[in-house]
Amino acid sequence: MTRYQHLATLLAERIEQGLYRPGEKLPSVRSLSQEHGVSISTVQQSYQVLENLQLITPQPRSGYFVAPRKAQPPVPAMSRPVQRPVDVTQWDEVLTLLDARTDKAIIPFGGGAPDITQPTLKPLWREMNRVIQHQLHDVLSYDTLPGRRELREQIARLMLDGGTSLSADDIVIASGCHAALTLALLAVCQPGDIVAVESPCYYGTMQLLRGLDIKAIEIPTDPNAGISIEALELALEQWPIKGVILVPNCNNPLGFIMPEARKKAVLSLAQRHDIVIFEDDIYGELATDYPRPSTIKSYDIDGRVLFCSSVTKTVAPGLRVGWIAPGRYLDRVLHKKYAAIGTNVPGTQLAVAAFIRDGHYHRHVRRMRQVYQHQLETYTCWVRQYFPCGICVTRPQGGYLLWVELPETVDMVCVSRALCQLKVQIAPGSLFSASGKYRNCLRLNCALPLTEANREAIKHLGVAIHNALEA
Amino acid sequence: MTRYQHLATLLAERIEQGLYRPGEKLPSVRSLSQEHGVSISTVQQSYQVLENLQLITPQPRSGYFVAPRKAQPPVPAMSRPVQRPVDVTQWDEVLTLLDARTDKAIIPFGGGAPDITQPTLKPLWREMNRVIQHQLHDVLSYDTLPGRRELREQIARLMLDGGTSLSADDIVIASGCHAALTLALLAVCQPGDIVAVESPCYYGTMQLLRGLDIKAIEIPTDPNAGISIEALELALEQWPIKGVILVPNCNNPLGFIMPEARKKAVLSLAQRHDIVIFEDDIYGELATDYPRPSTIKSYDIDGRVLFCSSVTKTVAPGLRVGWIAPGRYLDRVLHKKYAAIGTNVPGTQLAVAAFIRDGHYHRHVRRMRQVYQHQLETYTCWVRQYFPCGICVTRPQGGYLLWVELPETVDMVCVSRALCQLKVQIAPGSLFSASGKYRNCLRLNCALPLTEANREAIKHLGVAIHNALEA
Repeated sequence: MTRYQHLATLLAERIEQGLYRPGEKLPSVRSLSQEHGVSISTVQQSYQVLENLQLITPQPRSGYFVAPRKAQPPVPAMSRPVQRPVDVTQWDEVLTLLDARTDKAIIPFGGGAPDITQPTLKPLWREMNRVIQHQLHDVLSYDTLPGRRELREQIARLMLDGGTSLSADDIVIASGCHAALTLALLAVCQPGDIVAVESPCYYGTMQLLRGLDIKAIEIPTDPNAGISIEALELALEQWPIKGVILVPNCNNPLGFIMPEARKKAVLSLAQRHDIVIFEDDIYGELATDYPRPSTIKSYDIDGRVLFCSSVTKTVAPGLRVGWIAPGRYLDRVLHKKYAAIGTNVPGTQLAVAAFIRDGHYHRHVRRMRQVYQHQLETYTCWVRQYFPCGICVTRPQGGYLLWVELPETVDMVCVSRALCQLKVQIAPGSLFSASGKYRNCLRLNCALPLTEANREAIKHLGVAIHNALEA
Repeated sequence: MTRYQHLATLLAERIEQGLYRPGEKLPSVRSLSQEHGVSISTVQQSYQVLENLQLITPQPRSGYFVAPRKAQPPVPAMSRPVQRPVDVTQWDEVLTLLDARTDKAIIPFGGGAPDITQPTLKPLWREMNRVIQHQLHDVLSYDTLPGRRELREQIARLMLDGGTSLSADDIVIASGCHAALTLALLAVCQPGDIVAVESPCYYGTMQLLRGLDIKAIEIPTDPNAGISIEALELALEQWPIKGVILVPNCNNPLGFIMPEARKKAVLSLAQRHDIVIFEDDIYGELATDYPRPSTIKSYDIDGRVLFCSSVTKTVAPGLRVGWIAPGRYLDRVLHKKYAAIGTNVPGTQLAVAAFIRDGHYHRHVRRMRQVYQHQLETYTCWVRQYFPCGICVTRPQGGYLLWVELPETVDMVCVSRALCQLKVQIAPGSLFSASGKYRNCLRLNCALPLTEANREAIKHLGVAIHNALEA
């Protein structure tokens, strides 16, 4: 984060905390410059950011004042999906979303790609070069079935941060978190089985279930605290559910971090009903608070948590480096990996292992946590500014995804079609349900930089939603 | 190929063709040197190679003479597996084979890795560097679902060599031929379905069927001409078979190229019984004869051939670049790819696309065809020399795999265990059948260089087999 961003964040926090009240005059540019030991122009840039966010307003010849407080939009209420097993559909809609990747003119608010332009990624470039120079034989050879040991050792180290103590032998490399989840489901489930999911649930996971002919049962989920234990218990009593897929840390799409007590409660419920937990931690390292929250896996004593993650969101998607810690299903996962996918690319594994080993990973993730927090705040402001009243917006505790609930009458599937012509892409909420819910919702990728073009796109989005409301 | 190898191959051919007869004196070193415009030492090296192959014998002060002809061992007879659907087993045995990859001291005659040490691979190294320097953003970003277009365009060009005219849009990238075959099977089959395979059948394919809970029915196969059309037809009449997996060009493990008439016959049989053909062409580009043989896909008029291949054997396994041309199953394959595996590493795709585009691929494959042909011949000589009498050996028409059938009493599973201690690994034939056949067979990877250590390993193998015969 640059100096002016840092200062802007600091001031925004003071305003949010009420240290500067609405209508109050802010310190002069000169006094702030002296107080923080930064240049005049840095302070001016910071004030410009806050003005863009509509947190402050300039008054000619008097300085900057705290803007009248707009009410923070509420967080969406607990979801109430139909609680019976359903087949996932909507593949065509997801395919349309994916096809947008080929058109560089489209602003992809609907995807989940991270920011890969930050300078803290530079060392990865160096590692990739080094690997090709000095380990070409390894780069060109078959990988071992579980994946490169040097990488698995580094992942075991990373997992300690989430409270899990494992060895390299407990970890299997996969070509991303999605492939890891495939291996987990193949190891545990048969076609026709039922798996419980949070609702809303990431569309990629929903399509994965469809691809493996597994039925989904959507469980009510609180946008602040995660899946309802009571609702899950009820479902477990009614249906022969094999396991539950959870994204407990920096949930996709809701952004919550499940409280520790609830993590323990869901694990103990899984034990009582003898089901497994598929834990997806792909955004977990991007939690706003430091140290990062613990994983459900860290409480797992009988190997029933199949933990899946990757560096797709933390480092870069093109590396295709993910992993699974499958507990008691290790042997089955290895066989399914050999049978269904095969081994992975050794080159990117070697580069990532070195990137973690030499401390670059932690430096980069520390930066990205701050970058994304700042961007989430700014996008939230823009949404508040350009969207109609009566909306609900999540308050993500990490990651970079924002979930917006609009009035019931707005059909985001239609809105997103209209937006296509403006080259703005969003993920309509309907993709996050197999039972026809969330048509009035959308997910926004706030990893996109805070450019004027992106601000304009949010403005267009707001206009399209206004139009839909009035239609 | 170096000069002396070239000359040795030429002379070996003349001996095989009977131009020099057993007992006949060969031209003097000096006259050969003049005839071929090479140095004296080159000729001496060539004669050394032929002596090692036991094709010629030196007589002090007289020169070199053609050695008395040892009978060429016969090719194995048509296989006769039990023709009913069976579940694949033996995963533990395959896992043991795979585990050997981690131990660099083991000589891996049991694997299928190609030679990645040839100088014609140098341009690939340059391309990989160039991609990281100039296309870093693409390297780090999500790939599109079907894979990088520039690569698919180059693959469409390659496929013309096999007689198939397709566009980039007909091709989907997968992380290897194995993953391509997984997508093909997922697109066509359900668990419990039956798929026909050649017998013997590559153990990786067998385990793939097991991983997807598909039953295999093994069809009698001629080591010279491929699957028996009559036997396949009989099976199709008796069982509800969904498709047949064929490796028609440079078969693994038998090395045959299916005659064109038989390729057409099997396709017309598939049409009559409305089944699909899963065509595995992974070794097809390494056919000894130029131009390369045509694919079954090239005769496919109604999109029932799902064609799978990769650069694993032709370029390098660590790239994980494969593809599928799924015919009428394109949409299903795309969905299964998204659902089950996800997108691929863009970096290696970009490097391979440039490697093909700039002509390096064809130059490399041309060289490898000759290298492997020479190595197959030499390993065949070593096998003939060190193995007991009464064996059958395939005469591969391409690729680099040799299949050896020993007398019925030899149990290669036991022999391979004994060999472990000598750090020599082979693939026992039993892995190539789900119905308990081929325990007296083995597959040898002749891509391993013709070093003294490898010659010694074949010698050890011969001794172990002799011991097993006498026990």
